[in-house]
Amino acid sequence: MSEMAPAHTLPRGFRFGGTHCGIKRSGRLDLGLIVASEACPAAAVFTTNRVKAAPVLLCQAHLKRSAARMRAVVVNSGNANCATGAAGMRASRKTARAAARLLGCRQEQIFVCSTGIIGVPLPVQRIVSGLPDLESLIANRPQTFSEFTKAILTTDTHPKWAVSSCRIGGKHVRFIGCVKGAGMIHPQMATMLAFVLTDANVPAALLQRAVREISARTFNAITVDGDTSTNDTLLVMASGASKAPALRPSAKREYRAFVAALEEVCRSLALAIVADAEGATRVVEIEVKGARSAKDAGQIATTIAHSPLIKTAVAGADPNWGRILAAAGRAGVPMDPDRVEIWFGGVRMFGQKNGAGPSQPLRFSEKAAHQRLLAKDVKIVVDLKLGRGTARAWTCDLTAEYVHINASYRT
Amino acid sequence: MSEMAPAHTLPRGFRFGGTHCGIKRSGRLDLGLIVASEACPAAAVFTTNRVKAAPVLLCQAHLKRSAARMRAVVVNSGNANCATGAAGMRASRKTARAAARLLGCRQEQIFVCSTGIIGVPLPVQRIVSGLPDLESLIANRPQTFSEFTKAILTTDTHPKWAVSSCRIGGKHVRFIGCVKGAGMIHPQMATMLAFVLTDANVPAALLQRAVREISARTFNAITVDGDTSTNDTLLVMASGASKAPALRPSAKREYRAFVAALEEVCRSLALAIVADAEGATRVVEIEVKGARSAKDAGQIATTIAHSPLIKTAVAGADPNWGRILAAAGRAGVPMDPDRVEIWFGGVRMFGQKNGAGPSQPLRFSEKAAHQRLLAKDVKIVVDLKLGRGTARAWTCDLTAEYVHINASYRT
Repeated sequence: MSEMAPAHTLPRGFRFGGTHCGIKRSGRLDLGLIVASEACPAAAVFTTNRVKAAPVLLCQAHLKRSAARMRAVVVNSGNANCATGAAGMRASRKTARAAARLLGCRQEQIFVCSTGIIGVPLPVQRIVSGLPDLESLIANRPQTFSEFTKAILTTDTHPKWAVSSCRIGGKHVRFIGCVKGAGMIHPQMATMLAFVLTDANVPAALLQRAVREISARTFNAITVDGDTSTNDTLLVMASGASKAPALRPSAKREYRAFVAALEEVCRSLALAIVADAEGATRVVEIEVKGARSAKDAGQIATTIAHSPLIKTAVAGADPNWGRILAAAGRAGVPMDPDRVEIWFGGVRMFGQKNGAGPSQPLRFSEKAAHQRLLAKDVKIVVDLKLGRGTARAWTCDLTAEYVHINASYRT
Repeated sequence: MSEMAPAHTLPRGFRFGGTHCGIKRSGRLDLGLIVASEACPAAAVFTTNRVKAAPVLLCQAHLKRSAARMRAVVVNSGNANCATGAAGMRASRKTARAAARLLGCRQEQIFVCSTGIIGVPLPVQRIVSGLPDLESLIANRPQTFSEFTKAILTTDTHPKWAVSSCRIGGKHVRFIGCVKGAGMIHPQMATMLAFVLTDANVPAALLQRAVREISARTFNAITVDGDTSTNDTLLVMASGASKAPALRPSAKREYRAFVAALEEVCRSLALAIVADAEGATRVVEIEVKGARSAKDAGQIATTIAHSPLIKTAVAGADPNWGRILAAAGRAGVPMDPDRVEIWFGGVRMFGQKNGAGPSQPLRFSEKAAHQRLLAKDVKIVVDLKLGRGTARAWTCDLTAEYVHINASYRT
């Protein structure tokens, strides 16, 4: 990932930037702003956690009240504004009001996001004081996307962003997105925040449909440690500034091109989170096929992705196919161990011998398999041979380093 | 846990022993035998994994065919007889036949269990050759329970057993049980096996009801790494040799005394597994109360018990209550973060301030909390204040040592 997205890849109709407003003691960027030239269709997916941080509740309410036409996103890092009672909601509202006043729009057209420590009151005055300078900065000298990607980080080791594009009605349509990581770190740091912008022309309802569909296959198909944060948020805004014709559900080819490009950005961002997870050294892709349904396949892929035993085996490059078989078996969906085929690191380890009979452990070189599992990207394939359902999931290895980071051993 | 259960604590009507038959290369005990004086009521709970090892399938079939009246248990350690195709079932059947011949009973009255490496053919001839000596040994000089507890071990650091007793109809009724651990270790080792014997007089159907009820609150309320093995088995046999009157569902007081004593053994064994889990340094008890139902409470307790973030926080004695709140929130059951109260290591960290208003982070000494979390047993209490549902779950901390053991780092 290079330092900066080239200007020609940026979707038209947005400005963005980042600054330090005083929340992070380190002096790093901690306030980010995205402004659309005018209010435009938006869509979102939020955490399913019953404990929702104030900004999540406010975003949900604003999306509804604005009929999903949003003008701007204000993000702070360093404080998640979560579990701080009624004061938390007051702080998020105050942020939205300040941004709306600056931009001359209604306050329900503002998305507000926070990430960082939880349980500590948000120093909202610093955000309110920092916003005018940031706004005039990006209004006068448009910043690169890079400042925004940095302003949303907490413990991520680097900014994570991706671009893609497609053609709709002969027009070039651009997508850019960035994300901050899902690892949860002491003390009580949390949250995945993802922002995707496009200059496609797409009605809010159709955008929401696409975003929901895509997030199931991307952000919701990754796991680092199985924890769902109180602030997890994906926001997508579509400016329409590409001048491409408006997408319609009936225009299947255009809609598919749009979904493919949007999914490409989302998948890249999701995988970047996994790769940057705490202590991770390898990314694992789990592909399940031959299930009775896509849902069944997804269930098995997720169960494998969550297994600490498999994640530690990957950390040690240990060709332990037995753990994969056992995890598939406990996923709670139909499978027949006599038919299953397991590939691990490109090596077929369990399946039919000479193409006949029930599946069984196959001979392979442990040493060669170990070598292949030392690669940066490791693939697990489980073929149930029961039907046509497929699904993919992604995770990272579970290393001693992960434990060290998250235990914050004090002794 | 002392080396040996005193003779007066042993339930009447059973003999037991263990020997080395040649499966473990180390020369350690690897074949165990329990024999009831005559066929007696038995009950069992097996793994819910779709991949079931041959011995599990055979035990299920035998229980049905014998109308739950069983005579003996044959256990081998060192090889799980799993994922070895049709040969696996032949090997388990051969074991049962050999034992039935020795004891002069029907082969469906024999339980067969295996634990150890998976995917490798069971050297069943060694079991068949070892059985006659073991049988005549325990027939002539009854061994202590200790040999049996050792013969079932794989990577456990020590034998795990427990006793209890109760009075039924003026008679002393005894219970003894032993277990081998649930950690899964390289290469492809697995399985929890638990055996409980009592001289209570209880019909098979009532015994099965009690065992199912108790296992939900004990063996199924613990988690080490969330993996369910292909061989997990709990077997209970009731000889009736105490001469206590037969239990009836209508005799509530006697049934409760019986359940309490059986549950005491099962809970001790379950907690012993957690305490002996790979790399574990602490046992964590999670108590959830004030839920709308016991089921809701159980769901939250289990979600907390499975959270790697909470398990690593316990490893580091880190008073990270935010992770507990977040895990409770994503359990998928009703909760109101404004009402929740969280205690961690005996310290109230989140709840009402001065008994009024919505819940919020409370002030506490981080240093003192850290000191309390260094204890061997750590308690987490989550009170939802929504109803009367309660549940408990147990887990251990997740340490760097766990990762080292399970990754079997080869570099």
